[in-house]
Amino acid sequence: MTKCEDTPGEKCAVFGIRSAAEEVFDSIYYGLYALQHRGQESAGIATFSDNKIILYKNMGLVSDVFSDHLKNDRRLPGRSGIGHVRYSTCGSPGIENAQPMVINYSGGSFAIAHNGDLVNDDELRAILERKGSVFTTTSDTEIIAQLIVKEHLRTGDFIEGIKSAMNYLRGSYSIVILKEDRIIAVRDPWGFRPLVYGRSDKAVAVASETCALDSLGMQTVRDVKPSEILVIGDTVESHYGRKDEVHHCMFEYVYFARPDSIVNEIPVYEVRRNLGRILALEAPVEADLVVAVPDSGITAAIGYSQESKIPYGEGLMKNRYHGRTFIMPGQKQRELGVKVKLNVIKSEVLGKKIVLIDDSIVRGTTIKRLVKLLKDQGAAEVHVRISCPPIRHPCHYGIDMQSYDQFIAQKKEVKEIEKQIGADSLAYISLEGLVHAIGLPEEKLCLACLNGNYPIKEEQTKLSDI
Amino acid sequence: MTKCEDTPGEKCAVFGIRSAAEEVFDSIYYGLYALQHRGQESAGIATFSDNKIILYKNMGLVSDVFSDHLKNDRRLPGRSGIGHVRYSTCGSPGIENAQPMVINYSGGSFAIAHNGDLVNDDELRAILERKGSVFTTTSDTEIIAQLIVKEHLRTGDFIEGIKSAMNYLRGSYSIVILKEDRIIAVRDPWGFRPLVYGRSDKAVAVASETCALDSLGMQTVRDVKPSEILVIGDTVESHYGRKDEVHHCMFEYVYFARPDSIVNEIPVYEVRRNLGRILALEAPVEADLVVAVPDSGITAAIGYSQESKIPYGEGLMKNRYHGRTFIMPGQKQRELGVKVKLNVIKSEVLGKKIVLIDDSIVRGTTIKRLVKLLKDQGAAEVHVRISCPPIRHPCHYGIDMQSYDQFIAQKKEVKEIEKQIGADSLAYISLEGLVHAIGLPEEKLCLACLNGNYPIKEEQTKLSDI
Amino acid sequence: MTKCEDTPGEKCAVFGIRSAAEEVFDSIYYGLYALQHRGQESAGIATFSDNKIILYKNMGLVSDVFSDHLKNDRRLPGRSGIGHVRYSTCGSPGIENAQPMVINYSGGSFAIAHNGDLVNDDELRAILERKGSVFTTTSDTEIIAQLIVKEHLRTGDFIEGIKSAMNYLRGSYSIVILKEDRIIAVRDPWGFRPLVYGRSDKAVAVASETCALDSLGMQTVRDVKPSEILVIGDTVESHYGRKDEVHHCMFEYVYFARPDSIVNEIPVYEVRRNLGRILALEAPVEADLVVAVPDSGITAAIGYSQESKIPYGEGLMKNRYHGRTFIMPGQKQRELGVKVKLNVIKSEVLGKKIVLIDDSIVRGTTIKRLVKLLKDQGAAEVHVRISCPPIRHPCHYGIDMQSYDQFIAQKKEVKEIEKQIGADSLAYISLEGLVHAIGLPEEKLCLACLNGNYPIKEEQTKLSDI
Amino acid sequence: MTKCEDTPGEKCAVFGIRSAAEEVFDSIYYGLYALQHRGQESAGIATFSDNKIILYKNMGLVSDVFSDHLKNDRRLPGRSGIGHVRYSTCGSPGIENAQPMVINYSGGSFAIAHNGDLVNDDELRAILERKGSVFTTTSDTEIIAQLIVKEHLRTGDFIEGIKSAMNYLRGSYSIVILKEDRIIAVRDPWGFRPLVYGRSDKAVAVASETCALDSLGMQTVRDVKPSEILVIGDTVESHYGRKDEVHHCMFEYVYFARPDSIVNEIPVYEVRRNLGRILALEAPVEADLVVAVPDSGITAAIGYSQESKIPYGEGLMKNRYHGRTFIMPGQKQRELGVKVKLNVIKSEVLGKKIVLIDDSIVRGTTIKRLVKLLKDQGAAEVHVRISCPPIRHPCHYGIDMQSYDQFIAQKKEVKEIEKQIGADSLAYISLEGLVHAIGLPEEKLCLACLNGNYPIKEEQTKLSDI
Repeated sequence: MTKCEDTPGEKCAVFGIRSAAEEVFDSIYYGLYALQHRGQESAGIATFSDNKIILYKNMGLVSDVFSDHLKNDRRLPGRSGIGHVRYSTCGSPGIENAQPMVINYSGGSFAIAHNGDLVNDDELRAILERKGSVFTTTSDTEIIAQLIVKEHLRTGDFIEGIKSAMNYLRGSYSIVILKEDRIIAVRDPWGFRPLVYGRSDKAVAVASETCALDSLGMQTVRDVKPSEILVIGDTVESHYGRKDEVHHCMFEYVYFARPDSIVNEIPVYEVRRNLGRILALEAPVEADLVVAVPDSGITAAIGYSQESKIPYGEGLMKNRYHGRTFIMPGQKQRELGVKVKLNVIKSEVLGKKIVLIDDSIVRGTTIKRLVKLLKDQGAAEVHVRISCPPIRHPCHYGIDMQSYDQFIAQKKEVKEIEKQIGADSLAYISLEGLVHAIGLPEEKLCLACLNGNYPIKEEQTKLSDI
Repeated sequence: MTKCEDTPGEKCAVFGIRSAAEEVFDSIYYGLYALQHRGQESAGIATFSDNKIILYKNMGLVSDVFSDHLKNDRRLPGRSGIGHVRYSTCGSPGIENAQPMVINYSGGSFAIAHNGDLVNDDELRAILERKGSVFTTTSDTEIIAQLIVKEHLRTGDFIEGIKSAMNYLRGSYSIVILKEDRIIAVRDPWGFRPLVYGRSDKAVAVASETCALDSLGMQTVRDVKPSEILVIGDTVESHYGRKDEVHHCMFEYVYFARPDSIVNEIPVYEVRRNLGRILALEAPVEADLVVAVPDSGITAAIGYSQESKIPYGEGLMKNRYHGRTFIMPGQKQRELGVKVKLNVIKSEVLGKKIVLIDDSIVRGTTIKRLVKLLKDQGAAEVHVRISCPPIRHPCHYGIDMQSYDQFIAQKKEVKEIEKQIGADSLAYISLEGLVHAIGLPEEKLCLACLNGNYPIKEEQTKLSDI
Repeated sequence: MTKCEDTPGEKCAVFGIRSAAEEVFDSIYYGLYALQHRGQESAGIATFSDNKIILYKNMGLVSDVFSDHLKNDRRLPGRSGIGHVRYSTCGSPGIENAQPMVINYSGGSFAIAHNGDLVNDDELRAILERKGSVFTTTSDTEIIAQLIVKEHLRTGDFIEGIKSAMNYLRGSYSIVILKEDRIIAVRDPWGFRPLVYGRSDKAVAVASETCALDSLGMQTVRDVKPSEILVIGDTVESHYGRKDEVHHCMFEYVYFARPDSIVNEIPVYEVRRNLGRILALEAPVEADLVVAVPDSGITAAIGYSQESKIPYGEGLMKNRYHGRTFIMPGQKQRELGVKVKLNVIKSEVLGKKIVLIDDSIVRGTTIKRLVKLLKDQGAAEVHVRISCPPIRHPCHYGIDMQSYDQFIAQKKEVKEIEKQIGADSLAYISLEGLVHAIGLPEEKLCLACLNGNYPIKEEQTKLSDI
Repeated sequence: MTKCEDTPGEKCAVFGIRSAAEEVFDSIYYGLYALQHRGQESAGIATFSDNKIILYKNMGLVSDVFSDHLKNDRRLPGRSGIGHVRYSTCGSPGIENAQPMVINYSGGSFAIAHNGDLVNDDELRAILERKGSVFTTTSDTEIIAQLIVKEHLRTGDFIEGIKSAMNYLRGSYSIVILKEDRIIAVRDPWGFRPLVYGRSDKAVAVASETCALDSLGMQTVRDVKPSEILVIGDTVESHYGRKDEVHHCMFEYVYFARPDSIVNEIPVYEVRRNLGRILALEAPVEADLVVAVPDSGITAAIGYSQESKIPYGEGLMKNRYHGRTFIMPGQKQRELGVKVKLNVIKSEVLGKKIVLIDDSIVRGTTIKRLVKLLKDQGAAEVHVRISCPPIRHPCHYGIDMQSYDQFIAQKKEVKEIEKQIGADSLAYISLEGLVHAIGLPEEKLCLACLNGNYPIKEEQTKLSDI
């Protein structure tokens, strides 16, 4: 499912590594490659070598952006560095917003990469501009950087500056900073976005998800904690900024994070299977086969099958051979769309009552086509089960708003949607079921997009001044 | 798993379509896109319009080769046409061997595309050369084309020419020909490679696999039968060439065909699940979890789970974001290789006894790394089960030989391999189990790579003369 | 000036080299690069190594097609080889017509590359097809190759086969063949297209123009003579096929060949300067400045200046920075066209009477805009002088017909054209002047496009049989 | 001659246009295309539409960067806009330094593009950083922008801010700014780099050179004057900042500017021809032919010929077909280098005494090879004449230093160089001759790289504070 169509998207992933023994370019490259699912629009790496920061970034996948560096052995030198991949939003993004960003000021230089979304960006930008700040991009990252600079200069200490800056930042941020040869990882007080820390015998690293550490053969040590400022130099030191109530984003578990990652000490795969299991308990149906919408619904479908004892089978097959320039059919052939990407395994669905599992319904057009496709191929019934409660409120903490506005559940009741998509029945998991599946206390989660209960109150975003 | 590394590869797919009502370029494009798994090296389309054949072919995926045609609406015109995708062999292939090939001679012109491999290509080429034929490529396709030309000229009839040519062809061939506005589909007497025929209310089509017909919303009518020459004009006529004993390739079921295709009237998905089920019966093991090597082992793993009642789970996660220019790590980081592409879901495998399912072992290096990876992440035991008997003999009928030479089972016994890959146990499905899973009589299958029993005897390839 | 617009184009250049001491890939690469002006559409190289022919060809400039070979040191191996660059015609050309072409038959294999155009291609093709030949391309090259094959097989000797084939070939052909490790160069009896032969202490080479030999630091030995078959093996042997009256193409001197080449022992640069000189004598005008249309008119303009004593100056400046994807302005801005590519040097033309020199007028639109441009910038008068007589007849021997049909002089008298392009006066060099400038006897030249006197009579192209 | 090899390079060109009647994207595109000789590394356009600035920039030639915009008609909207092309320096440049740059601050937004080089950049950056400025790039452009922001905020008026900022800027700067729908053009007090202003009946534009106005069919009005701030809104207003002694860069005339441009009211072409004429008077030699090193020496060679009455001829021919990925020969074939790019016209030079004209000698390797090449082809004598005095001092005002360090004349006397390059004689034009050729009073020129007399004294660059 293409971006800007039927899938919510999050902004970016970050990675940072420092080694006492080795060049780190290859590790950043493979670390970012493991995080590519969090952003396919641009990629960048900054390293520190010979007392200066070296930066390369461009539009494209990690492997395309850095293929020349590897082929011709023109790796960026240095034993510490950070990297970033960015999400392809639907607006025109622009190379000027690619990350990492390098900042030069009277306190020296640093490179910064950011995953998240500030709530009070307009306000902070206005205040900073009033105080004389000048912005060369439209990104939150530059706001954070300018605030850190300001507070560094005010307090006289870089780490104090970060700590102080955190007093003003409202929203989600998982940040890696390259300051001289140190890596500094910062996570917002609410812990919205994931950020983990790991090590091998040769290096210490931070990453948006554990899968990046795994792919390098590194051991995950622990999460970077909400409010924490982790400073990775010759030693690893822990500082803390302003604290607040922790609210981890539930959608990392439901959709965004890779299933092989462990987010906030909870394995994503376990949560997704639990979602399927609980969905089977909450919304049982007499059926012959559990089928997933690949790839997003697979793990929940396995869970649903295990709990319901209804066999799991691959009823839909995905074509994986998109070229760089795959073009979807024109007006006239739009109806081919789904068939070109997904095909039914007829022998598996013929005459059967199907439970079809996915993680979300956005506009409803794709699931409607899939229901029809399954029925056209002989499915007796199609019961749709969604492993996330209806999304009815916009996210302010890092989920792409453009697609979210299109969520059908913001405007329609479940019964209406059921009718619209042509399913024999439709059920979403309950909010309680979701919380239970994750296994964290409800108050530790951000469920704002489900219940409108935003962790950061509007009054909090009103800053008197900096 | 990359070609030339650990996966056997087959040569090509073909597609042909004729419509009374519509331009066919888009249908060929999407038909080939559905068949892309059978060849990613080059793509080509030939159509018939205004009394001549129009051809475009180039290196690359279908969507890349024809992106300009779609973007700028420079579609090849015509209501009948054929297409081809070619497999990326490890040798240097060359644009000059791309297909379809256009043939001009005193009998007119035709375009031809071919999937298969002749056994007596050297002999035929030598005979044809002795008789004055001149070859501009090194492909079997040109041999077939020249033979058809020769026999057409001799017999005075194109279809008779094909029929006569079939008397001399030994090996596998599923062919589509564009002769004026007719599509002619030919399948070898043994029925090695698949070829099917379908229709909608607007068009008639032939394709290497049913999934191509499905993706266009067309109904599969039936297989093109072994020895059959199907002529698609204003009507669809059936002719037959030389007959022989039918021997369908078993490896289409085990690995090559898309699981949503129906090959020789047998659903591939069913066979793969049966393979898993029978494997569970033949080689049971006390275990906690059935895990597949993605994507090739998934369906058999589901079958193994269903039969054994051991839960199926995703223990290995695949990274799907290869860019166009993905470069594998250098010497020093070769060991990262598998981790970069596959990661273990630790929570799922920790402390568990694992049954790991794949469809084949080539050199054994990948499965060895996966066993180690699973154990490193805490798997208590890893039992490897292979859903195809050991491959011990070269294929002469369309499977890439280069990689097959490397099949570990050609040289080693199962126990040796078990030890080498570090598995707690290793079992292959039996030949009987395989046959049973497919559901065709053993004598209807080609099992030569398993038992050395080649359907085409050497003496048959000795032609006295043409 | 873009192809298909205002410039006649010729088909291709060939190059061949054999060394006793060195790999030849780099030499072929640079040789073709020196000949790039003769064809920018596709490039190909075939070498002989380890008893077989190795071929690589693709669409694009030499430097683009072979950049990977050089960057990654994957040069084609071998001490003998041939190469080809092809002209970008306006029709859809197709990778399948790229050269060299490799031919396999009972007499072995050879690679062939061709520059020229057959007159009796349709007839030869028909005869060969009647005799059983099968063609996989639409190129003259394949006709020549099939004829050589036929005659080789008939006579039992390859060189005899070429000699015999020459009896049937009507039209222009400068050919290089790679047969085992020998290079064979063949030039048609009329000597239409150039072909030269050179050597260094390490290698012997043939090329379409001497500039290719120069760029490799090789000495030009002499022309390959009309009717000659030059066989470059351990020794260099000379054979001769059917003889006819020599008629060298005059347009090589006027436009096609590089000015630093020596064609038929006559320096192209000398001819072009002579053309200018004679034009000054034939069509004098009282003026202040001689200006060339860059780049094609420069040398003649220098000659005109030298003879007339009117100073030569650069009144028009060309923008050389076309990117790969330069797009000309749309409808509305079409008038910008010429200005974007050529700008007037105002200070040089202001108030002056200008003689504007070019080598030809095709449709007349470009020269009309240039005259206007010069006048708009203050030129008092603009007198156009063309260093080639009016082209009034199509070329059958290698010049692209598509653009030639558009030659304004085929339909209009000089006075009409003068008026249409807005020049104060217009004169073409006379046919006698042209002949004099070249310095060869008129009967040794092909002037068919000027006077309709075709060296190959129609009756000659009627072959009884082969 | 490739950058980083034997040619000095300057940084960038700017273009700006405002129309009351039309969209300006196409005009900026063609304007930049006309200025492409001043920078081939990156290109960018910023327009103002719907109350915001729209920016697109990327690495590559103008025609490549914006091909998609033209092909798919996704032109940036707006009736006012600016553009920039950047020079390819030898260091690693980075997309983050591409221009225009967009600046956001409490005073609003503007886009800025810059051609030039500040002398006191380090000092300004340090002062600004001390005052709290934060830099996200390493470019002078950002320093200028931040200073303007600061002074705008201090004075309360944007134009006053620019005026005030000019008090602190030392070095060369020709700037275009897009502030809302106005274009503001600023030129440094010394007038180092060119900047002109023109109009048509539909638009007003500024450009680095007049050739850009010509290519759009616009009339040049006049130079933007040193110290001038030209504000192009509904009317065109002229303001002035700090004044200083005017010193126009002499090298624009000698090498950088396009010969069809008029720089500081003096036609570049005239100057170059004068240089040749004066060189002929200052350093006469008895010879048979004047030959230019193409393309840089052509105009001076024509002048030399006109004055000396020695005929001008093309003795050297340049190959213009570099592909995107042209690769120069390896170690072993390095000597081929010059021959591959330049070939001698033997017939023209054989037995002749040659005067070889170029505009500069950098390392001396290229001219040495050319002298040898000419002699190898039979030139009797080769007398080298250089149309610029020896460059012995680094440029601080916009010429690339990397290559300048290599100027052979910084270390060697003329006689030594003459010997080293193997010329029969070598002469440079005198400084007086150069000044005379330009026709401006010596005190109006910057000749620092020739005589070490820098217009901006070091004490001037010491700012007490801002």
